[in-house]
Amino acid sequence: MSYELHYWPTIQGRGEFVRLALEAAGAAYIDVARGAEDAGRGLPAMLRCLQDERLTTPPFAPPFLKDGNIVVGQTAAILNYLGPQLKLVARNEQARVWTQQIQLTIADMVTEAHDTHHPVGAGLYYEDQKPEALRRAKEFCAERLPKFLQWFERIVVRNPAGSRHLVGGKLSYADLSLFQLVEGLRYAFPKAAARALAQTPEVTQLHQRVAALPRVAAYLASERRIPFNEQGIFRHYPELDDGG
Amino acid sequence: MSYELHYWPTIQGRGEFVRLALEAAGAAYIDVARGAEDAGRGLPAMLRCLQDERLTTPPFAPPFLKDGNIVVGQTAAILNYLGPQLKLVARNEQARVWTQQIQLTIADMVTEAHDTHHPVGAGLYYEDQKPEALRRAKEFCAERLPKFLQWFERIVVRNPAGSRHLVGGKLSYADLSLFQLVEGLRYAFPKAAARALAQTPEVTQLHQRVAALPRVAAYLASERRIPFNEQGIFRHYPELDDGG
Repeated sequence: MSYELHYWPTIQGRGEFVRLALEAAGAAYIDVARGAEDAGRGLPAMLRCLQDERLTTPPFAPPFLKDGNIVVGQTAAILNYLGPQLKLVARNEQARVWTQQIQLTIADMVTEAHDTHHPVGAGLYYEDQKPEALRRAKEFCAERLPKFLQWFERIVVRNPAGSRHLVGGKLSYADLSLFQLVEGLRYAFPKAAARALAQTPEVTQLHQRVAALPRVAAYLASERRIPFNEQGIFRHYPELDDGG
Repeated sequence: MSYELHYWPTIQGRGEFVRLALEAAGAAYIDVARGAEDAGRGLPAMLRCLQDERLTTPPFAPPFLKDGNIVVGQTAAILNYLGPQLKLVARNEQARVWTQQIQLTIADMVTEAHDTHHPVGAGLYYEDQKPEALRRAKEFCAERLPKFLQWFERIVVRNPAGSRHLVGGKLSYADLSLFQLVEGLRYAFPKAAARALAQTPEVTQLHQRVAALPRVAAYLASERRIPFNEQGIFRHYPELDDGG
């Protein structure tokens, strides 16, 4: 049976971390909200599911995954759930916890990247909070972006199994998510990301290796990969890209 | 052997979610950074650990837990790790994933509560971002705070095992964290929290039941419980409390 991924149909957003895991594992899945309404899919199908009052574990927000009767929300929880099934996490508990910890740190950085264009709140347009966004992006580009990337560099370098992966000697969902994070940062903040990535060669190489994985490369070249745009989390507003 | 909790010694902050779990379970633990420096504890001991270059799983930031040789960072990952050991999560995988999902949603709300006083970034003082904070807090109080609390109300009401707990028929770390979230909201936003909690009677009662648990009540009355203050996540700035 196919997994059902429920996420906003026009952006990569947080759903992309789940899409990448499913794609890299070659798993069968339906991207529900991108399907045709006359086939019972599309955005209405996602909203019906979100608002289903019989659901005892209703997600707070997309993305969420349906696996038969099981519904799981929160990106990091979805990946923690899918990891063993997709063989995208090591079997031992310690490695599983470490992989999850990395994912949560990626999630924190994703939230901070989002807040550069929405510092005052998600309910207002970017255009209504530009002065605040400029201040927040300045700190993000100068302080937070390098700090996070240096932490990823440090943990790749310290991986006892070698620096080809974040955890152990095998691909995990954290590697895929770090790839996506670097993609997003390069799109949104090309100057600031280039400057920070020049200091993190192992992260840069890990990103390249993930991009070259046959299933990932095929996905990225396909129409299933939604291009970055200015409705998603990573938005390219040149005025926010502080190259220092 | 005792757990070692490493967190900033003068605030509840994110460390409090871990403290509450350890306290409610009656677990032996050392709150390292609050110990005496001449006994090898205190803030320097925490910083030494954070900066230890031999550590292959270095946390990005406090809080982190040491359990023998295992080091776990990220509040939600720490609780996911501790849950089975402290019997603060159900045994079956599905309940464990749901508990984690609730915890991650609590974490999202904690971040948003923090960002009301630091919308421009954590590197600046509140006093340097007051106009931005006023805008962000207005949306938080009017939209986000009720939206999150109503989701918690919904999932308590829908719990097939009854509305005494968030997950199943037993106390979990998510119940403890929801207690702490409500405490923090009431401290920081007394008017906005009272207005929203008036619409969520089951959340209000769950909060009261957790506060009355003998070990939790003893902890809250002890000196181990650091009072809320204006260095933590939940800060009482009356100008940010929008009672509507």
